[in-house]
Amino acid sequence: MEEITIRDIARMCGVGVSTVSRVINDHPDVNPQTRERILSVIQKSGYIPNNSARNLKRTEARSIALVLKDIRNPFFTSMIDLLEVEVRKRGYSLVPHRVRAGEDEVDSAMEFIKEKRLQGVVFLGGYFRNSVEKLRMLRVPFVLSATGSMPDSESFALYSSVSVDDKKGSGRLVQHLIDTGHRDIAILAAERDEKSVSGLRLEGYLDTLEKNGIPIREELICRMDPDIAFFSSENGYETTKKLLDRKVRCTAICAFSDMVAIGVCRAVMERGGRIPQDYAVTGFDGINLSRYYTPSITTLRQPIEKIAEATVALLFERLENGGENRNLLYEGELLIRESTAGGILIETD
Amino acid sequence: MEEITIRDIARMCGVGVSTVSRVINDHPDVNPQTRERILSVIQKSGYIPNNSARNLKRTEARSIALVLKDIRNPFFTSMIDLLEVEVRKRGYSLVPHRVRAGEDEVDSAMEFIKEKRLQGVVFLGGYFRNSVEKLRMLRVPFVLSATGSMPDSESFALYSSVSVDDKKGSGRLVQHLIDTGHRDIAILAAERDEKSVSGLRLEGYLDTLEKNGIPIREELICRMDPDIAFFSSENGYETTKKLLDRKVRCTAICAFSDMVAIGVCRAVMERGGRIPQDYAVTGFDGINLSRYYTPSITTLRQPIEKIAEATVALLFERLENGGENRNLLYEGELLIRESTAGGILIETD
Repeated sequence: MEEITIRDIARMCGVGVSTVSRVINDHPDVNPQTRERILSVIQKSGYIPNNSARNLKRTEARSIALVLKDIRNPFFTSMIDLLEVEVRKRGYSLVPHRVRAGEDEVDSAMEFIKEKRLQGVVFLGGYFRNSVEKLRMLRVPFVLSATGSMPDSESFALYSSVSVDDKKGSGRLVQHLIDTGHRDIAILAAERDEKSVSGLRLEGYLDTLEKNGIPIREELICRMDPDIAFFSSENGYETTKKLLDRKVRCTAICAFSDMVAIGVCRAVMERGGRIPQDYAVTGFDGINLSRYYTPSITTLRQPIEKIAEATVALLFERLENGGENRNLLYEGELLIRESTAGGILIETD
Repeated sequence: MEEITIRDIARMCGVGVSTVSRVINDHPDVNPQTRERILSVIQKSGYIPNNSARNLKRTEARSIALVLKDIRNPFFTSMIDLLEVEVRKRGYSLVPHRVRAGEDEVDSAMEFIKEKRLQGVVFLGGYFRNSVEKLRMLRVPFVLSATGSMPDSESFALYSSVSVDDKKGSGRLVQHLIDTGHRDIAILAAERDEKSVSGLRLEGYLDTLEKNGIPIREELICRMDPDIAFFSSENGYETTKKLLDRKVRCTAICAFSDMVAIGVCRAVMERGGRIPQDYAVTGFDGINLSRYYTPSITTLRQPIEKIAEATVALLFERLENGGENRNLLYEGELLIRESTAGGILIETD
């Protein structure tokens, strides 16, 4: 019996090959009835989509490692979905690998690559404070994705990276607060000298205050609780309660992620505060949830589709052609919502 | 040079071996200062924690597949964390494998196991409507975890499973609504005949209304949008808007997950409705976020720690001793919060 191809499926369904391909690759732009019909024909026919089971057997080791620490942040789970689609488009599979607390990311990745014979690595998120030098030792191409662009020319040459412009994005949120009359703006951040996503967002805050001639008040720079997951609502909640207890002059709070901002809002509301009348609140990332929270959260949406696409494109460029390291920065989109503007805003897509 | 052991690390830190082990395994019950000291000694010493890099090399193929479809629901990402800790305790590693839309879960798992030479499988979530018979064909031990217990004696013998009692849990939420004066209770659910988590929760709703002599009104059983991710806030939001547009008599809305409940609340509030005065809302799962949302969400907390522990214990029992299939059901915990009780409730742990 001849093997069933994607062309056969398209013919059986009376649609084009590209429509079948979009369904297989989970693209949203397919009519739901058509999608269901195609899926049902695929299942009945015994057709195994490209780079699924059969293809895997043939090409066995064609896999890319996805090395990450944090899966609880919806920002990262959305990124995983998008990276997977991009990698699969190229006939490879994506093999996730979690790094544990206390494990060095690069060491852990090296062992994993050797063990599983992987062709490349995407590092998603994480901190490379102590590991930048070590990245040289990786014997396969790799890209740092959404890890915080370390704008330091010397280490830039050591790796390829794709991320949002964290510093500029954070600056735009702070400028929006200043433009709406705030001067006493607190920020929830990591340690000041950390070269990480959160460190860069803190830099954006400091620069923007300075540019506007607003003195920096150390009492408004709140360190997150090191014993609670970093990007969690819990941490935003606990850190904000401590800030409110100190009763410093403050009318706005910048969280460095939407999940953290949700905890900030909860702490403010439990203390009887109104958002934004008593405290305006901003997040970062633009996860779906930031739209469904009440108040909906003013945030900087990361262009995750572009970041995922560029990450994988860059990885395969290096895989196939070698060449120089490149570092790409994308701009985010400022979304002004209820947590700074008030009222109930109804968004339409 | 002799190899550094966990005992050496414990001695260097002046703590017990079990404390070092808890830090390595990410247990929360370690003093933060102690944790940091231990991690720093581990990194400086070059000690490679058990079943990390070195151990992996030695035992190469000692891995368990984690097969799942949905990673966007925080319920599942929490479960992944817990399952990973349990599997690592036994010196194995957990290798996640995503099933794509249109792919059969069991077929996909079979190819993956063969390809990666895995010793066992945990299926996390998902639907087994068409696959229960096929599960027989798997050549390695497996456990269905949080997939919805299908209480059908014939198929029960075909697999081992661990989950919350979905039907009973849902019934308790509906009984709570009835006890607080509601009779016109809508539910957001999947198709009625589906044997899945959502189908079982719908059964709990129907049974509880019947037991209380409340007639079932079809117009209050709302089908989720099949073209939007099932457990998402988006789906809860869109489905609730359609319910409100129909202007049927209704004072309470049961969502079958917390993420969905968040979308329900948002839709109600955008239409100017008050929660719970105009509509009481319930969720399911007990994810952290349900506590930080405002209103905080009345829900059934799944005992995810117990479910993860029992899943892995059952898998290794079958791996090491063979034996009969077993099906374990755990009870959840009813958490009554602002979305049905009103006011601002401050929870203390």
